[in-house]
Amino acid sequence: MCELLAMSANVPTDIVFSFTGLAERGGVTGPHVDGWGITFYEDKGSRTFKDARPSSESHVAQLIKSYPIKSEIVVSHIRQANRGCVALENTHPFTRELWGRYWTYAHNGQLSDYQSKFQVSHFQPVGDTDSELAFCWIMEQVLGEFGHTPPDDMKQVFEFVATLADEIRALGVFNMILSDGVDLMSYCTNNLCFITRRAPFGKAKLIDTDVVIDFNKETTPNDVVTVIATRPLTKNEQWHILQPGEWKLFRQGELLINS
Amino acid sequence: MCELLAMSANVPTDIVFSFTGLAERGGVTGPHVDGWGITFYEDKGSRTFKDARPSSESHVAQLIKSYPIKSEIVVSHIRQANRGCVALENTHPFTRELWGRYWTYAHNGQLSDYQSKFQVSHFQPVGDTDSELAFCWIMEQVLGEFGHTPPDDMKQVFEFVATLADEIRALGVFNMILSDGVDLMSYCTNNLCFITRRAPFGKAKLIDTDVVIDFNKETTPNDVVTVIATRPLTKNEQWHILQPGEWKLFRQGELLINS
Repeated sequence: MCELLAMSANVPTDIVFSFTGLAERGGVTGPHVDGWGITFYEDKGSRTFKDARPSSESHVAQLIKSYPIKSEIVVSHIRQANRGCVALENTHPFTRELWGRYWTYAHNGQLSDYQSKFQVSHFQPVGDTDSELAFCWIMEQVLGEFGHTPPDDMKQVFEFVATLADEIRALGVFNMILSDGVDLMSYCTNNLCFITRRAPFGKAKLIDTDVVIDFNKETTPNDVVTVIATRPLTKNEQWHILQPGEWKLFRQGELLINS
Repeated sequence: MCELLAMSANVPTDIVFSFTGLAERGGVTGPHVDGWGITFYEDKGSRTFKDARPSSESHVAQLIKSYPIKSEIVVSHIRQANRGCVALENTHPFTRELWGRYWTYAHNGQLSDYQSKFQVSHFQPVGDTDSELAFCWIMEQVLGEFGHTPPDDMKQVFEFVATLADEIRALGVFNMILSDGVDLMSYCTNNLCFITRRAPFGKAKLIDTDVVIDFNKETTPNDVVTVIATRPLTKNEQWHILQPGEWKLFRQGELLINS
């Protein structure tokens, strides 16, 4: 399987602390050694750092752990290959452009008997994972439903995506993160949790490596930062565990849709 | 304006030497301080490193200069902003997916009176540069001409793109690099040159910083590596200067179309 990490914040925030914990699971405290990636949104722009090497050994991951990039939305993934070989083209997150926005997606899980369902033409996978094909199918359905201009209320789009995710969940395990650079959606089959940090901030201690952070020293009283992960990353905080079929939409760190 | 750098090789090759010269032009020997980016293809996959900071100061550029990533196709760009503010979304190269391939594009130059010509819907720009809009228009024309499956002979696609580039050149300066991960196209308005290195390899000396490389020690006798740049990067080699309207297509380092 794989592990997911995502962040939604109301101020540009770095994710060095959380990524440091996640990266340990890519070869040290976890078996997810088949590549990793992380996407940072900076205003409308986004940049993705990827490597087919284990995150615990990757030079690029070392940069991410040592160089704080401030972002309001982050999507990250460490991979343990099931469908699709170990290769850069099969490394998450995946990105496609729709409506002049970069859509970023990462998936944890495995699907079966999906080829006949996921017929795509406008958005085609580059690699050979079930994950990327499912993403292309979702984007194709969104384009078919809403056309070439987005609705005024983007919540409609994510509500539609949730109905697609319900269909995909019938084919296997589908824990998913999706963002258009403004909103961040998380959909759960069996492994997803989140925490929203706001004042008064305290200290947090990573589970996977001996690192403690005092958020009081890193934040202002108005900061709201939500972190989503496959499994809790800290041992002294209360994470909310999502239930099968449950999904959330976050904007600027706040819960926008609680479904 | 901006500067372009690209590479096509028949074996995975690192571009540390050439990028080290280019990066100097981003604030030291050149005025291109408004961001930079570089895309590496690794088989069907690609990854782009971008930064809105000057390449001469960027932590990410430091990684690229110190960590050799082996690739058969590279596209890079350093930016001096004219149209569009300094922001990640306006930083080249730009990438879109078509036919299950990542298409990567970078532009040097400036266009005028282009808004009415570049009508797009399938591929929409995220940022506000003339460059990205021109790229989206090119991709939209290619989709319109060939549909959702590529022709058997991809040379037809690049020949079609060249006719589009001729139209765009009528709107201003359009030096362009375009790749689908297999072929590398370069189109010249006024500033583009290339060099193809093959055995017997010699030494090369950068113009922009005091670095010398002995390609004999870095290569095998069968290696063929073509490097394209806005201006020659080395002082002791013969670069081929492209003429206005001239374009080239390279595959695995070899010249495939000489037009």
